[in-house]
Amino acid sequence: MTIGFIGLGIMGGGMAANLRQKGFALVVHNRTRAKAEPLLAAGATWADTPAALARQVETVITMLAHPEAVAATATGADGFLDHLAPGALWVDCSTVNPSFSRAMAAEAHRRGVRYLEAPVTGSKAAAAEGALRFLVGGHENDLAAARPLLEAMGRQIVHVGPVGMGSAAKIVNNLVLGQLMAAFAEGVILGEALGLARQTVLDLLVEGPAGAPLLRLKGERVATDDFADPDFPLRWMHKDLHLAAQTAYEVGVALPVGAAAKEAYALAVREGLGDDDFAAIYRFLARQA
Amino acid sequence: MTIGFIGLGIMGGGMAANLRQKGFALVVHNRTRAKAEPLLAAGATWADTPAALARQVETVITMLAHPEAVAATATGADGFLDHLAPGALWVDCSTVNPSFSRAMAAEAHRRGVRYLEAPVTGSKAAAAEGALRFLVGGHENDLAAARPLLEAMGRQIVHVGPVGMGSAAKIVNNLVLGQLMAAFAEGVILGEALGLARQTVLDLLVEGPAGAPLLRLKGERVATDDFADPDFPLRWMHKDLHLAAQTAYEVGVALPVGAAAKEAYALAVREGLGDDDFAAIYRFLARQA
Amino acid sequence: MTIGFIGLGIMGGGMAANLRQKGFALVVHNRTRAKAEPLLAAGATWADTPAALARQVETVITMLAHPEAVAATATGADGFLDHLAPGALWVDCSTVNPSFSRAMAAEAHRRGVRYLEAPVTGSKAAAAEGALRFLVGGHENDLAAARPLLEAMGRQIVHVGPVGMGSAAKIVNNLVLGQLMAAFAEGVILGEALGLARQTVLDLLVEGPAGAPLLRLKGERVATDDFADPDFPLRWMHKDLHLAAQTAYEVGVALPVGAAAKEAYALAVREGLGDDDFAAIYRFLARQA
Amino acid sequence: MTIGFIGLGIMGGGMAANLRQKGFALVVHNRTRAKAEPLLAAGATWADTPAALARQVETVITMLAHPEAVAATATGADGFLDHLAPGALWVDCSTVNPSFSRAMAAEAHRRGVRYLEAPVTGSKAAAAEGALRFLVGGHENDLAAARPLLEAMGRQIVHVGPVGMGSAAKIVNNLVLGQLMAAFAEGVILGEALGLARQTVLDLLVEGPAGAPLLRLKGERVATDDFADPDFPLRWMHKDLHLAAQTAYEVGVALPVGAAAKEAYALAVREGLGDDDFAAIYRFLARQA
Repeated sequence: MTIGFIGLGIMGGGMAANLRQKGFALVVHNRTRAKAEPLLAAGATWADTPAALARQVETVITMLAHPEAVAATATGADGFLDHLAPGALWVDCSTVNPSFSRAMAAEAHRRGVRYLEAPVTGSKAAAAEGALRFLVGGHENDLAAARPLLEAMGRQIVHVGPVGMGSAAKIVNNLVLGQLMAAFAEGVILGEALGLARQTVLDLLVEGPAGAPLLRLKGERVATDDFADPDFPLRWMHKDLHLAAQTAYEVGVALPVGAAAKEAYALAVREGLGDDDFAAIYRFLARQA
Repeated sequence: MTIGFIGLGIMGGGMAANLRQKGFALVVHNRTRAKAEPLLAAGATWADTPAALARQVETVITMLAHPEAVAATATGADGFLDHLAPGALWVDCSTVNPSFSRAMAAEAHRRGVRYLEAPVTGSKAAAAEGALRFLVGGHENDLAAARPLLEAMGRQIVHVGPVGMGSAAKIVNNLVLGQLMAAFAEGVILGEALGLARQTVLDLLVEGPAGAPLLRLKGERVATDDFADPDFPLRWMHKDLHLAAQTAYEVGVALPVGAAAKEAYALAVREGLGDDDFAAIYRFLARQA
Repeated sequence: MTIGFIGLGIMGGGMAANLRQKGFALVVHNRTRAKAEPLLAAGATWADTPAALARQVETVITMLAHPEAVAATATGADGFLDHLAPGALWVDCSTVNPSFSRAMAAEAHRRGVRYLEAPVTGSKAAAAEGALRFLVGGHENDLAAARPLLEAMGRQIVHVGPVGMGSAAKIVNNLVLGQLMAAFAEGVILGEALGLARQTVLDLLVEGPAGAPLLRLKGERVATDDFADPDFPLRWMHKDLHLAAQTAYEVGVALPVGAAAKEAYALAVREGLGDDDFAAIYRFLARQA
Repeated sequence: MTIGFIGLGIMGGGMAANLRQKGFALVVHNRTRAKAEPLLAAGATWADTPAALARQVETVITMLAHPEAVAATATGADGFLDHLAPGALWVDCSTVNPSFSRAMAAEAHRRGVRYLEAPVTGSKAAAAEGALRFLVGGHENDLAAARPLLEAMGRQIVHVGPVGMGSAAKIVNNLVLGQLMAAFAEGVILGEALGLARQTVLDLLVEGPAGAPLLRLKGERVATDDFADPDFPLRWMHKDLHLAAQTAYEVGVALPVGAAAKEAYALAVREGLGDDDFAAIYRFLARQA
């Protein structure tokens, strides 16, 4: 069975590599071909367009940066959806908002294509190590079909519910993580301004009730002021908080604190931190004239 | 050695009980005498005013609700500071802002009284069980003198630095916890509005990178919508976020997300949730017409 | 010439009445027929669907609550766009976001239909009196064709630029107004809590540099705590702030204060104030347990 | 009658000059003597300390940057309060929070000194032209005594109520102005990002319901991106929003939007805009990497 994989960025590159390593035949496509080279060297074949890819496979996995990219790749010019055979399966691992995911499912179903959403938690390292967690929304049968692929890329597969529920879980997860990172940053900055050593504050927080795994993961970046080579770029966190805000509006929920976090990331993006790890919200908030 | 203990609320009651149980002679005072009855029954004696208490002891411990209460008790009418003998020790366990703590230290030192700040982390249960963590600011000698008392009330004693540093650590801690609780609340509410079961969202968060001990502690309250019998009342969290905001202004730090959290708690207080556990920020944000 | 008018709510009802009164033949449609009765009594004719309406006219005016309603009416089942003759003109007076407006223009143009966006400023009274201000985006020729209609409904026609610019101006206008109303509310509430009479605060603000016409308009509502019979419902302001937030994301702008205002309105909607005038943000923020 | 004047900054310099010009004998003091030179050249005499000044006058006017400066000048080392004769009058024109003003009144009264708070609205130009508005809190008799002085410096004298009410009115005023300026800034920035000319957005806002005098005043600064030579420095607006936040906490009011504005100014201060006019919040929010 040959798998089509579209989107070879920070996350997708590692995921596709795991599929290849576990023996799946791959046809790959990416906006810029350069990122595909390691996979091509490992035996994957290249497709010039999503459409060309679709004509060679029965399963397409997408791992793209935002809903607009997913829509363009699926239903835009040279999109793959019109070129999949009826009965084919599309597994979207991108982080998108639930209403968008349901819209994509409708586009797929209209063409007889099966659709599964399978956004992931875990970042660059987990993608590279095949240690992701999939938050799956869709039909059980479709999950059964996709399971060998997901198991090749991850350690945990949670079937959250029908289409939309996986995205819901993912959006909620990142809404919370975006706020937590901002909270840690503000805490450390306030502590430092009061004369505490940065590491002292980090240690106090890690050992107390605020000691989330996220804090352990990001503490070293903050401690060393090193936000390059991002596990999860700040602009993606901004995007995910935007999707959370949009989703909250759709379902009538107020997010007064999440909205403040979103705007803090927005300001950080404007000041040039978008391509750093999202822990760089620390650098933004710590900035002095 | 007889210890004076002022402030027998949710936290102070448990702390004083531990001192008594471990054999310390106690003179106690509280704004309302009723709360002292269990201690009096256990052998503590009552003082009608802080001043009267001060004349009987060489060490005073205070555990009060906010800086204004500490100032009134120490230097107001019938305050204790003017009635302690030179060389006496004041240990303030209240959560106050660092600049206030330094001002109190100055008031004490001017009278020849030693001053130690020892705010705590851990809530009602930890106070009752003698399992608190003390974040101490002050001179090593003063800490040495206070150590047996602190060990009777807590499990961990962290000497953070000179006066002000303990308060700094405490304020930072609660700034972060206040934001985390709001973040969890918003995440759960958004998830529920999208159709996920409340417990599902809680489980997903607990198992992921956001899974701070706080979330485990407060998850059951959220799951059962039970915020009565507070471990830490919401109005205190509002107060601590206010102290963090004031402190941040003093040292030139911006807290855009913390400020939003503070105002969310302020709105919750206005709507009658101040005496519930601070996890009731969930109830406020979930409220529907 | 017969004009089709879709959307007979608070604003649309007054606008269509002005067209009728100035002699235009009207075919009207509304989600609920009851609101059309005054117009039908005045000689307008009813169409059961947007599609049925479109087959009878060469110009369609829409005045709907939000982008989703516009999309459904234009391109949904029984939408009007597929039933207009090539060369027909669609004038959308609804408040929508610029990218949506451009998408609608594309839908229209694809069918040979001309498109003009003409959102309005001014509320219920201005609509009833034909005193609106139109912020027009589109081609000059299309504006020339629509001008007699716009002049029948308004006093000022500003040609802001091509399609998208009218919506941009409108979104900016409401972003600012939503924040101003919240600012006035917070100021009055703080003043009252400090012991100033409500009218004293209103007078001080009106006479000072903050004295925007909005404050004069809404001051009486605040003074009398009367938010019924809305000029502009609070839920619409929430919607417009949402559109501003979405638009800001699309163009990479941060709105830290606007986002806080948006969430304050969101909370007010959740507490049952959505159908009151948006000045009821005062009531929400003033609320006591 | 000789008047003591302390605080010769942007505002105080102009105010004292008006007093001198209208014939009042002046003794002046300022933290840095250089700013007093124009007044000394015009016949005022210099006092090295507030205490020295107090021994020469029966009325002291203060115009200082923040409550801490007022407290230091009045009751700190070489403060003036201990050196005024009983029955002397202190008129504080500084912007301070109401509870602080009441505390200062108590300090004065304890020494038999009369106290009037008279914060002003109007900025640098109004101070220079003697066109300020005074928001007076205090006893009628004290206002009667101060009236000739206030009339020499301003055009309008509003007796708001007892001590605290003048500060309340002033704090409310600046809370609203700080939010308005941020709202205008966000609106203009969003409009520009959408392709509207900056002047077009400013014109649309000025002519509509948002058209507050503030917008007319600050529009040219925004239009020309010129925030130097401030009428009211951004760091003072940050300070006033801080005082509003502190006051709101004291009286149990939530300011969710004002808090967001405060933090936006705080970030702007950190990025070096504190000495620019507060309209420079536009520059902060418009900043691009």
